[in-house]
Amino acid sequence: MAEASVKPTPLLKDELDIVIPTIRNLDFLEMWRPFFEQYHLIIVQDGDPSKTIKVPEGFDYELYNRNDINRILGPKASCISFKDSACRCFGYMVSKKKYIFTIDDDCFVAKDPSNKDINALEQHIKNLLSPATPHFFNTLYDPYREGADFVRGYPFSLREGVSTAVSHGLWLNIPDYDAPTQLVKPRERNSRYVDAVLTIPKGTLFPMCGMNLAFNRELIGPAMYFGLMGDGQPIGRYDDMWAGWCVKVICDHLGWGVKTGLPYIWHSKASNPFVNLKKEYKGIFWQEDLIPFFQSVVLPKDCTTVQKCYVELSKLVKEKLGPIDPYFVKLSESMVTWIEAWDELNPGGPAQK
Amino acid sequence: MAEASVKPTPLLKDELDIVIPTIRNLDFLEMWRPFFEQYHLIIVQDGDPSKTIKVPEGFDYELYNRNDINRILGPKASCISFKDSACRCFGYMVSKKKYIFTIDDDCFVAKDPSNKDINALEQHIKNLLSPATPHFFNTLYDPYREGADFVRGYPFSLREGVSTAVSHGLWLNIPDYDAPTQLVKPRERNSRYVDAVLTIPKGTLFPMCGMNLAFNRELIGPAMYFGLMGDGQPIGRYDDMWAGWCVKVICDHLGWGVKTGLPYIWHSKASNPFVNLKKEYKGIFWQEDLIPFFQSVVLPKDCTTVQKCYVELSKLVKEKLGPIDPYFVKLSESMVTWIEAWDELNPGGPAQK
Repeated sequence: MAEASVKPTPLLKDELDIVIPTIRNLDFLEMWRPFFEQYHLIIVQDGDPSKTIKVPEGFDYELYNRNDINRILGPKASCISFKDSACRCFGYMVSKKKYIFTIDDDCFVAKDPSNKDINALEQHIKNLLSPATPHFFNTLYDPYREGADFVRGYPFSLREGVSTAVSHGLWLNIPDYDAPTQLVKPRERNSRYVDAVLTIPKGTLFPMCGMNLAFNRELIGPAMYFGLMGDGQPIGRYDDMWAGWCVKVICDHLGWGVKTGLPYIWHSKASNPFVNLKKEYKGIFWQEDLIPFFQSVVLPKDCTTVQKCYVELSKLVKEKLGPIDPYFVKLSESMVTWIEAWDELNPGGPAQK
Repeated sequence: MAEASVKPTPLLKDELDIVIPTIRNLDFLEMWRPFFEQYHLIIVQDGDPSKTIKVPEGFDYELYNRNDINRILGPKASCISFKDSACRCFGYMVSKKKYIFTIDDDCFVAKDPSNKDINALEQHIKNLLSPATPHFFNTLYDPYREGADFVRGYPFSLREGVSTAVSHGLWLNIPDYDAPTQLVKPRERNSRYVDAVLTIPKGTLFPMCGMNLAFNRELIGPAMYFGLMGDGQPIGRYDDMWAGWCVKVICDHLGWGVKTGLPYIWHSKASNPFVNLKKEYKGIFWQEDLIPFFQSVVLPKDCTTVQKCYVELSKLVKEKLGPIDPYFVKLSESMVTWIEAWDELNPGGPAQK
């Protein structure tokens, strides 16, 4: 259909930071150069601070290693994971921008079905700048997309939508599987390009993957804590999941939307399933209690900021999950430390509902 | 990926009926002949019973007009709409099969992106025979589809899924828009083929369109009542929506799943938006109360069959929606009549939770 005018997507060059955990792969930035060069990068190094990360010329970046995190946060640095890509959330905290895009260094530029390079960042921005529809399902997917709309039977009072807090992108090639599924299906590749963006309905939890993720930091940033993983912790590979469950519960409470679907990136290599199994196996058990817990969370009405919601959630974590394992008591304390550190570095005050 | 063996989809020739409201278009059956000829058709004529519908040779069918409905149901025929395609639900009631596929006569065979004819019925059968996942969202869509699975972070205890009660298919070309949207966007066409099937999460309502719809009649049939529309009724074009809201609430209560997405059909022509506006305008107002009503429905635990759920729902309709308009009192009474008629024609007894 001939639309009268389709506005180009604003690129938000001054309003978005790209946060990347350790870059072990120099091809990574070269491949993304046409799309990333105009943005500011925040690189958070997850391992040995004495190792240096080489960033190719032409990129505008700041790099934080463990020594920097310790220096900036002091004792509160305990809330940031060590030797795990979960440390990336430190980058969310030190950013001063409204939006964050975070991506793993094994994620490359994917191609759409017409063989054109996908500008993942542009699609995330589209997703974040258009409203979300968590209160009723639209069968033609994102109603704000060109060529689409709300279908018959969609209540008119809900068509304004709500603010979008999170845009969760997907992966071609290596799917984001857990260790057991990796072991069972070592050769499975995702080759299905699903041309859709949709809002995850209110009240529904989802597995948020941190590989290809964007969010409105001003809205939901303080809840994007990737928890305690890696060195000295009993689990790994649940950092983004944990953040996703917390974020979804808080978005539902505050009336914001979470979208999933486009854009795709090309996930180049599967991590080692044996190593993953070791990291995951406690999480696989605990998760059976975590999901019912998050499904049952009801936040009080006076929790009108993300910070208040998050501190309230930390209390519930201690009370309801603490009995499962002392880890959750430590995690709940870290959640509070994270908020204190966030507020210290972001003194402007929280976004109100 | 090379799967060891992919089972062909069973075609359920003896277990599925195709229900079609009045066929005004002879091309319709010719176009579908390769896909429908092996099935039994139930045609429910919505208008003047003296008019005859010509069915091309080679089809196995039964045809019901208003006189047949009156003869079979006696006074209970009052629950079946007249001069409206909502009368199709009579076909669901007289069928003796486990599955139903219903389609409008302006829906033709669509083509997939590789220009191959889409066998809509086969895809519906795939959807109905594989489980649904209403309790947690899978970001790679239908986890049971070839080449897909549950992603990292999906609780293992939920991977068995639940029985699928409904498969809601979509439309290329003319989207299913309400009259206001048709008026505002007369030239909009749906050309986006989204290669996905997904479960609508528990607790989320959706606009169920009756144009291209399949369901497990043994599970959810008694809730597939298309209400009172057409001649003598104050609204139209809410028949499938009404059924969808009732069905979804009952599926959520009984633990069954509802899927939407593939298959697409080609919706050939838009109905007249001015006529549609006249039919819809009360519905557009009422809907603003209907959605909160259905969102708030809680069915008692002892409602363990669809019939019990539906009768309970009819009471709530009378109590909560009756004050809006006397139409809802009449509708609630028709809901009870429908169940009585259903049980009379289907004496085997209801499916248990």
